[in-house]
Amino acid sequence: MPFRAKRPIMFSVVGDSGAGKSTLARGCVEILGPDRVTNICLDDYHSLDRAARTAAGITALHPDCNHLTLMGQHARLLRQGETIFKPVYDHSDGTFTRPEFVRPTSVVLINGLHGLYTPELRALWDVSVYLDPDPELRIAWKIKRDTAKRGYNETQVRRELEARRHDSESYIAPQRNRADIVINFRAPADYATTQDDSRLDVRIRIAHPIPLPDIEDLFSGPSSRYLKMERGAGGADLLEISGDLDDVSTHLIEERMWKHMPAAKHLRSTKLGTFQDISGERRSNPLAVTQLIITYYLVKASALAAKQEELAAEARSFAEAR
Amino acid sequence: MPFRAKRPIMFSVVGDSGAGKSTLARGCVEILGPDRVTNICLDDYHSLDRAARTAAGITALHPDCNHLTLMGQHARLLRQGETIFKPVYDHSDGTFTRPEFVRPTSVVLINGLHGLYTPELRALWDVSVYLDPDPELRIAWKIKRDTAKRGYNETQVRRELEARRHDSESYIAPQRNRADIVINFRAPADYATTQDDSRLDVRIRIAHPIPLPDIEDLFSGPSSRYLKMERGAGGADLLEISGDLDDVSTHLIEERMWKHMPAAKHLRSTKLGTFQDISGERRSNPLAVTQLIITYYLVKASALAAKQEELAAEARSFAEAR
Repeated sequence: MPFRAKRPIMFSVVGDSGAGKSTLARGCVEILGPDRVTNICLDDYHSLDRAARTAAGITALHPDCNHLTLMGQHARLLRQGETIFKPVYDHSDGTFTRPEFVRPTSVVLINGLHGLYTPELRALWDVSVYLDPDPELRIAWKIKRDTAKRGYNETQVRRELEARRHDSESYIAPQRNRADIVINFRAPADYATTQDDSRLDVRIRIAHPIPLPDIEDLFSGPSSRYLKMERGAGGADLLEISGDLDDVSTHLIEERMWKHMPAAKHLRSTKLGTFQDISGERRSNPLAVTQLIITYYLVKASALAAKQEELAAEARSFAEAR
Repeated sequence: MPFRAKRPIMFSVVGDSGAGKSTLARGCVEILGPDRVTNICLDDYHSLDRAARTAAGITALHPDCNHLTLMGQHARLLRQGETIFKPVYDHSDGTFTRPEFVRPTSVVLINGLHGLYTPELRALWDVSVYLDPDPELRIAWKIKRDTAKRGYNETQVRRELEARRHDSESYIAPQRNRADIVINFRAPADYATTQDDSRLDVRIRIAHPIPLPDIEDLFSGPSSRYLKMERGAGGADLLEISGDLDDVSTHLIEERMWKHMPAAKHLRSTKLGTFQDISGERRSNPLAVTQLIITYYLVKASALAAKQEELAAEARSFAEAR
């Protein structure tokens, strides 16, 4: 049992528009299995549809444009194992569509713009991730997605990015400091020409109370450039993974990490590190390590929650026996 | 302050289709004021629309045809003072329409077919009423309503009543024994010709832990036929009010009842006992007394909840001071 807790493990993925939230969420569902992950997008909690936002001159990044209290209520109910009845926002035309029932599974992944905005929301997450790619990457990703799936052209996307800049900096970016894990993908020098997302450098800052296992000792000599780890930098561990990380080194890291998750071995998936591109399914070693780290935190958070459930049950039976 | 509790007072009105639930609910909103009463109809929690019910050969009275768990969750949230996001069922065409947000006020009135069906629901009510009119009345009321507002003709309504009889007896009627208050309106002998709803006899069975004030001493001699009260009959008090109850006697009862609600005097309303008829607004003395009794229980339940809130606050400050 990789997820031992009775209650669902609450996993929040926060980041600006185009930061890679739904790609990370889809990867998580692929790796852990759709029967283990409930994936909810907080865009469903917009309070105004696209036309009403335009008319009011407000962006979706503004907290007033979102039902933050309802988000908190629903996340709390899911954490308690309860099914919710929630709104649904249709990105293809920017309107609200038929609401839906959502039943929580072992992991509830909630991705959105404001997942770390209110104290109510912050108190609910077992693991929270803030996606903070370099601006160059985020703009490229947002243009790709919005022109392909949301009916915009590139000029419109760039204009929208400009219109959103104030709210992005005021309301979204400050959540960075509230996350357990901050993931910063970085474009190599030739990205503008290659547009290759498979060899991005990644910096991961980990402030979760559970420490990451040692993995830097796997690398010495020339291969030490693949991975750097700085313990406790500013109260957090800092991990740097090179976009050049090769398959052998990735395998070494995987072996080490799985050793620290003995009960979760059957989660090992060939889907680790894969993502969709215009050329179809691709694989990225830095992405594989990033996903592995996230999996590690979800598995450990569940073990911790299971332990707390056991202690609570013991306390109850002790109180009853008195 | 008639409703002293911080949390909303939860008032459940249960009864079969045509029993008079929405008429009672509307009266309650009129008397107490729309800013004090949140009125929710549990038909909004049907799990199938009219067409799907017909196709599946299931009636709306069947528990499987309703989201009972969601009802319980939402009632619990409202009791905690939280706003809910709920489905909406449109009776005019039997389909689901745009969902809505509902914020609870001082009194949350939840009327429906299954309000006392599950233990979760039963545990939430401060006051519960089961409407149990004589079958003759209920059939007449249902035909009037369904032909006027739901697009059926009389033959269809009678056929539907027949089709629903099994589910009505199996799932709705047994809830009668779970209610704090059972209200049984009775048709006088000439009802078939007069169709006059203003002079119905009413029997009220009260099993709420708070006792009803004495009012039977107001009546002696020939006027004693207006009102009978039997204390503790089968663990409950039984009150019988005659359809002939005159204005003077009604006024006497009103004075006595308001004396027992000194903080709620400003709730005294000229709307007490009024109802809508094909001939417009009418008034019924037995209905006025019935509504007064309900008001009494809502006011007392709120005082009780306020007391419990005070005790809890004291216990907290005592625990903190230690």
